[in-house]
Amino acid sequence: MKPVKVGLLGLGTVGTGVVRIVEGHQEDLSSQVGSPIRIEKIAVKNLEKPRSIAIDRAKLTEDPWEVIRDPEIDVIVEVMGGVEQTKTYILEALERGKHIVTANKDLMALYGSEILAKALDNQCDVFYEASVAGGIPIIRTLIEGFSSDRIMKIMGIVNGTTNYILSKMSQEGASYEDVLTEAQQLGYAEVDPTSDVEGLDAARKMAILATLGFRTNVELSDVHVRGISSVTREDILYAKRLGYEMKLLGIAERQDDEFSITVQPTMVKNTHPIAAVGGVYNAVYVYGEAVGETMFYGAGAGEMPTATSVVADLVAVVKNLKLGVNGLKQIVPYKPKKLKTDEQIAYKNFLLLHVDDKAGVLARITQVFAEYEVSLDSVVQSPNTNVNGAEIMIVTHYASKASMDKVINHFESLDVIHRIKSVYRVEG
Amino acid sequence: MKPVKVGLLGLGTVGTGVVRIVEGHQEDLSSQVGSPIRIEKIAVKNLEKPRSIAIDRAKLTEDPWEVIRDPEIDVIVEVMGGVEQTKTYILEALERGKHIVTANKDLMALYGSEILAKALDNQCDVFYEASVAGGIPIIRTLIEGFSSDRIMKIMGIVNGTTNYILSKMSQEGASYEDVLTEAQQLGYAEVDPTSDVEGLDAARKMAILATLGFRTNVELSDVHVRGISSVTREDILYAKRLGYEMKLLGIAERQDDEFSITVQPTMVKNTHPIAAVGGVYNAVYVYGEAVGETMFYGAGAGEMPTATSVVADLVAVVKNLKLGVNGLKQIVPYKPKKLKTDEQIAYKNFLLLHVDDKAGVLARITQVFAEYEVSLDSVVQSPNTNVNGAEIMIVTHYASKASMDKVINHFESLDVIHRIKSVYRVEG
Repeated sequence: MKPVKVGLLGLGTVGTGVVRIVEGHQEDLSSQVGSPIRIEKIAVKNLEKPRSIAIDRAKLTEDPWEVIRDPEIDVIVEVMGGVEQTKTYILEALERGKHIVTANKDLMALYGSEILAKALDNQCDVFYEASVAGGIPIIRTLIEGFSSDRIMKIMGIVNGTTNYILSKMSQEGASYEDVLTEAQQLGYAEVDPTSDVEGLDAARKMAILATLGFRTNVELSDVHVRGISSVTREDILYAKRLGYEMKLLGIAERQDDEFSITVQPTMVKNTHPIAAVGGVYNAVYVYGEAVGETMFYGAGAGEMPTATSVVADLVAVVKNLKLGVNGLKQIVPYKPKKLKTDEQIAYKNFLLLHVDDKAGVLARITQVFAEYEVSLDSVVQSPNTNVNGAEIMIVTHYASKASMDKVINHFESLDVIHRIKSVYRVEG
Repeated sequence: MKPVKVGLLGLGTVGTGVVRIVEGHQEDLSSQVGSPIRIEKIAVKNLEKPRSIAIDRAKLTEDPWEVIRDPEIDVIVEVMGGVEQTKTYILEALERGKHIVTANKDLMALYGSEILAKALDNQCDVFYEASVAGGIPIIRTLIEGFSSDRIMKIMGIVNGTTNYILSKMSQEGASYEDVLTEAQQLGYAEVDPTSDVEGLDAARKMAILATLGFRTNVELSDVHVRGISSVTREDILYAKRLGYEMKLLGIAERQDDEFSITVQPTMVKNTHPIAAVGGVYNAVYVYGEAVGETMFYGAGAGEMPTATSVVADLVAVVKNLKLGVNGLKQIVPYKPKKLKTDEQIAYKNFLLLHVDDKAGVLARITQVFAEYEVSLDSVVQSPNTNVNGAEIMIVTHYASKASMDKVINHFESLDVIHRIKSVYRVEG
C-alpha cells in the first residue's frame, strides 16, 4: 500500500525520538493506519552533526523549504522550535495542503488561532498534543473527553523545571539558588532559566489549555503571571506547617462566561491531589460541571514522552487522511472572550508580615483588611527574634485581586509593618 | 438540519443524567456535531414510576424491542445494565446498523469481543467509555493517546466502594465490618456488596483495560482475583508503619508478549501517585515504554460523571455518523493471548506470621524461603503478647507466585508457625 510521507522539521532530542518510534514501531503503526508511515525528508541545522541514530544522509537537508515545498510530503512534523520563522513554514505548509503535527507551545500560544484558521481554510489538521505536558494526552482529552461537559476550572503544574525546584526546596529545605544551580547541572533547567522560573513557559501552556477548555481565544497577554524566583525556603516551611505545598500553579477559571487565567506560586492544600505531584512531573486538574474532579498526571517533557505524543498525533492525522476527514474536528475558539477584571478575580491569600512587637499592631492591620472588605480566615502572631519584632501570618477568605492590591498598597505605607515578607495565592 | 435520533435503554440514575445533559446542552452539542441530537424513545421498566425530570410520556415504552427495532433511530444508548438479555438487544441493534454507546462493564467484559466483531461486520461504532472509571476518559486515552507506545503496565483503582472502605479504615483505624455498614448506609456499597468487595467488579474493568492496552482478548477468567473482605485494621496499620497504603489494585502487566492480570489488596508504597487516591475516587496508572508514567484520576461512578462519559461517546458517534466513518476506528484485539503461568508471575510480598517466641524459629522460617528460592528484602521480628508468642513481618524481593504458594503451603505444616496472619502483594 502507498506509504504516507512525512517531513520532519528538526532533529533534536524530540525529533530523534520521533524517528526512533516511527522506525521501531513500523509494523504496529501500519496495522493501525492501514499503510506504512515513512519519514521522507528531515530539515536539520547542521548536516555534519553526529547523530545517535542511523539516518540515510540523503534524507537530510539544511533548508526547511525543501521539506515544506516537497509535493510528495503529506504531513509536516514540526519539532524545531522557534516562532516567527517557524510560523511562515507552517502557514505555507498549510496552504500547500499539508497537515501539521507540532510540539511547539510558543508557536501555538502566540499564533494558535491564526494557524487553526488557516488549517480550517485548507481542510488540514493541526495537532499539537506535545505542546503541553509532553507525556499527558490532555489536549485530546479536553477536545473529546469533555465534549459534553462545561469545564469550570483547569489547574496545571505544567512546567517541570519549576516543579523540580519547588519539590526539592520542600523536601530538603534547600534554598532557591542552590536548587536552581543543581537543576542546571542536571540539565533540568536552562542556563538562562528565565522563561521557566518567571512562569512564562507555564503561562503559554495555560493559554493553550484555557483556549481549548473554554472554547475562547485566550492569549498569552491575558494570563496574569508571577514566577518562583522570590519564593524562599522559609515560605515553603510556613506553607508546610499550615498544611500546604508550594506549587507554581496555572489556574484558569470560568464563572458564567467570564474567565481568569493566572500563573503564580500558590500554596495548595496538601490533601488536594495536585499537591502530591513532585519532581519534574506535570499534572493537569480539570473540574467539569458534570464530571467533577479529574486529574491527569505524567512526564511533562523528555525525548520519548514528547515524541510519543507527537507520533500519537501523527497516527491521528494519518487515520483522518485515510478516512478523508482531515480538518473537520478542529476546535476553533468561538466563544466571545470576557476576561474578569481585578475586581472580579477572587481567591484566598496568604500573607507573612514582619511587624513591630507592640500592643495595637494587630488591630491596625486587621482594620486595613476591614477597610477594603477583605475578611480573614486565620491570623497567627508570633515573636520572631530574627526579624527584631513579631511575625504575623494571615490567611484571608476569598478576596478580590483589586482589594488585595489596595491592602498591600496600604500596608506599604503603614509604619508598624517593617516588611511585607510574602504574599501567595492559596488553593483548596 | 435533520436531527440525529437516539434510543435510550434504561432511565435509572445514569439514563436520567444523559437526558439532563442532552436536553440542557442542546446548543453546545449541535454546534459540535452540526445537527440536533434528539432522544426519541426510552425503554423503562415501569411507565408509571415518578421521574425527577420532565419527560414526554409518549417517548417511554416498557418494551426495549420497540426502541431497537425503530427504523428511525440511529444510535442506541444502553444504560439499563444486565448481561444476557441486554446482549441480544445490542447484537440485534448492530445487525440493524445502529451504533451503540454503553456504560455496561459486565456486558463488555464478558461479551466485548463478540460485540466488537459484530460491530465491525456492520460498520457500526461501539463506544463504552463509561464502563470503566465513569468520569475518567481512560478508554479513549488507551485507544488514541497511546497509539504509538507499547503499554507495559496498567494499575487501576477501579472500584470506588472498596477504595472508600480501605481509605476510611486507613484514616480512622476502623474495622472492615464497621466501614462496610457505614458505606451501605451512605449508598456507597450495595446491600449485597459481594461483587465489589470480592474484587469481581474491579476484575471486569481490568479485563476491559487490559484488552485495550495489550490489544489482546483478555477475559474475566484470565484475571486472578482476591477481594478485601479479609483485610483487617491491623494489616492496614502495619502497612502504614512500613510506608505503604493498602489498596484494592488491579495490575495488568506485559513482559515481552506475555501477560498477567491480577486484582488483589496490595500494599502500595506511599510515594507512588496512586497511593494518594482516596475515598470513592478512581485512578488508572499507565506505564508506557516511551511515555513513562502517567496517571488519570477522577470520579469512578455517579450519575453525572458517568452520564458525561456516555454523552461524550454519543458526540463521537454522531461526529463519525456525519463524517460517514463509523466502525472504522474500532479496536478489535489482534494479538495472540499468552498468559503468564504461576511460575512466571512475579511480585514482592508482605507476610505477617504469628510464631513461637523461641530461638531458632527465624532460622527455620528463612530456610523455607531459601528452599523455594525466594529472597527476602526485610524481616522484622517482635514479641507480641496478644498472640502469645512473637510476630514476624517479612517483605520479599520479587518472587514467583508458584514459589510463594509453595512457601505458604510449607508454612501451614510448620509447627513453629501458629498462624499465617496476612499475605499481600507489595508494589513500588
